[in-house]
Amino acid sequence: MTITRGPQAFPRTEHLRRLASLKLEMSRREIDALVVTEQHNITYLTGYTAVSAYVPQGLVVLAHQEEPVFILRPMDAIAAIHQCFMERDKIIAYPEALIANPEKDGYDVIIDYLAENGLAKRGIGIEANSLPAQAAEKFRKRLPGASILDCTSAVTWIRLIKSDLEIEVMREAAEITAAAMQRAAEVIRPGVHEADAAAELFATLIRGVKGKPGTGIEVIQMCSSPLTGTAHVMWRDDVFRDGSQINLELAGNRHGYAAAIMRTYSIGAPSERLRRVHDIQVAGLEAALDAVRPGRTCSDVANAFHRTIEKQGLRKESRCGYPIGIGWLEASASLRDGDMTELKPNMTFHLMLGNWIDEDFGYVISETIRVTESGVEVITNVPRKIFEI
Amino acid sequence: MTITRGPQAFPRTEHLRRLASLKLEMSRREIDALVVTEQHNITYLTGYTAVSAYVPQGLVVLAHQEEPVFILRPMDAIAAIHQCFMERDKIIAYPEALIANPEKDGYDVIIDYLAENGLAKRGIGIEANSLPAQAAEKFRKRLPGASILDCTSAVTWIRLIKSDLEIEVMREAAEITAAAMQRAAEVIRPGVHEADAAAELFATLIRGVKGKPGTGIEVIQMCSSPLTGTAHVMWRDDVFRDGSQINLELAGNRHGYAAAIMRTYSIGAPSERLRRVHDIQVAGLEAALDAVRPGRTCSDVANAFHRTIEKQGLRKESRCGYPIGIGWLEASASLRDGDMTELKPNMTFHLMLGNWIDEDFGYVISETIRVTESGVEVITNVPRKIFEI
Repeated sequence: MTITRGPQAFPRTEHLRRLASLKLEMSRREIDALVVTEQHNITYLTGYTAVSAYVPQGLVVLAHQEEPVFILRPMDAIAAIHQCFMERDKIIAYPEALIANPEKDGYDVIIDYLAENGLAKRGIGIEANSLPAQAAEKFRKRLPGASILDCTSAVTWIRLIKSDLEIEVMREAAEITAAAMQRAAEVIRPGVHEADAAAELFATLIRGVKGKPGTGIEVIQMCSSPLTGTAHVMWRDDVFRDGSQINLELAGNRHGYAAAIMRTYSIGAPSERLRRVHDIQVAGLEAALDAVRPGRTCSDVANAFHRTIEKQGLRKESRCGYPIGIGWLEASASLRDGDMTELKPNMTFHLMLGNWIDEDFGYVISETIRVTESGVEVITNVPRKIFEI
Repeated sequence: MTITRGPQAFPRTEHLRRLASLKLEMSRREIDALVVTEQHNITYLTGYTAVSAYVPQGLVVLAHQEEPVFILRPMDAIAAIHQCFMERDKIIAYPEALIANPEKDGYDVIIDYLAENGLAKRGIGIEANSLPAQAAEKFRKRLPGASILDCTSAVTWIRLIKSDLEIEVMREAAEITAAAMQRAAEVIRPGVHEADAAAELFATLIRGVKGKPGTGIEVIQMCSSPLTGTAHVMWRDDVFRDGSQINLELAGNRHGYAAAIMRTYSIGAPSERLRRVHDIQVAGLEAALDAVRPGRTCSDVANAFHRTIEKQGLRKESRCGYPIGIGWLEASASLRDGDMTELKPNMTFHLMLGNWIDEDFGYVISETIRVTESGVEVITNVPRKIFEI
């Protein structure tokens, strides 16, 4: 029996809208085909979320064809038929014998497809910021007559502005995010093993809320004393202790979309230093939120934060955040000084104000936000306090 | 205050042993420096497991220096000081301003380091199967006098043969794996939401067993009817039903090392077809295990499986497995027809016999195994049955 298309997170029209934007960009860059290999870009364009990007696969978007063609491993083609919005003849499975085959692999099949479809001497885009060098070399060698153009971030820049449907999905993710942060306040206790707390948080993130489960897994960062100066450590193989501070970062996931948040937890009364940093950082966060509105720039938002905290004697070296959506971080604009990207309605950012001040002291707070027609919507909904245990 | 080195999963001697093997390989390839960018290779060589590979970072292994140099983002350098076996002066933080900076990034800092250390005209290895094409291009352009060699898989081939210490860690991971599979038999029930079951399994994987928690998160594949013909789908947004079949694949994790397993679950009595496929596949599994011993090849193992099931009228298109360790799949040898890699003691494989037979029907069974001095040790310990719910 054949598999049929499953429930779709987004209607066909939404995928066609995304592709129309991309084809406009392809036309601007004068390419006839774009080979999309970054897995989150593939999810964005097709709806595919299965975990198969560890072997070669690629989505070929042709300027003059409505639906893209997804070339992947047979083992994964069935999931693609089920999950993607395209017709099943747009899913092309390459032979399993090409897996771990040093002579020929899935990228060769993509190249063959381009050649067989009259593109060997046309403009072809690749994503050189993620496509492995070995694969890119293969495109150049095997398509010597083509004009191969680095179209890094072409898709990611389109992803930056969400549709209302995407925003709805991110709001669902944010409800899960909030549930997990509240759960953290219940399970972080002195003597509790950090892993046991993390286990509860993962379970909360997957169970979801209001009958809407988490539909993917996002890593949890749980940096507790003496590691509050670190940013991306998972839980330690140890217990929480009286007086410990815990910097927590996590994200709910719906249909691949993350809504991330950071909050700081303290077992026992926060130190004077922690309180002071918290107050300053919250003031900075509010200033940054105030600065968000269409027409302003990413740089404006970052500088509103930096100016506010610097007036009070604090500095933050790292940027103030990044676009967020499928796969958590989207590499396009950046909330940093000098990034002149103009804010537009339905851009979403993780306003990430984690501040790693000393080697053994850091503080975290963040929100997932949306640029609205006139200002900002904070999508995540968790009290802006130090969670005192 | 400064951060200090934390508890290490492996002693310094273990890391130096790994590096000694790598330096031998570097000498064979006539390179003076190897730039390791694949995150699991970095974990292998240093002990670093923080989640930072989404921005440029690299480990520079110099032929004539005992410890490698880890160049990464300041936000992550503190975790590196804490987790890596090297002295802190081997951790080099590049400016935060290089994040999302189109002009210059972390790879430029790695290139600068190579140039400043007299390597601009020497042999330099890169990992072109994972290093993005953009970054590789930068190495070539900025180091025109260097002989830049693709050293893809140089580290992975060394990882293929584990030390006894690594085997011990993988056995710990396998105990967690077994606990999660047993838990699945308790939580998979008709009417239960798949996500709720997945949540329980994630929690089990992180809580661990015998006071040894999971120290990382591995994705769970839960392909249930009508999706048993798919391989890499996570849970669905639906409930299990009477008569459903569930193909489950998961892995415990200790210090980055995974021990993976697959088993098939059936709510209600398995169909005649499922029983028959199970019997054939188990016979194939046993034949494959019988074929494992030093001196045999990967091809021998695969063909023992294929021959056995083909005699009984079943075929499997995909390979029979791959090396397993840090980050689950290690890309080096492959359990497939024609792979003449000779088995050696302490090689570990995920003997992956998942068989996606029709679009709407597949069956899974697998074990994580170790090649011993005289045969095979099955590291995972879960009954080889269809789990009937």
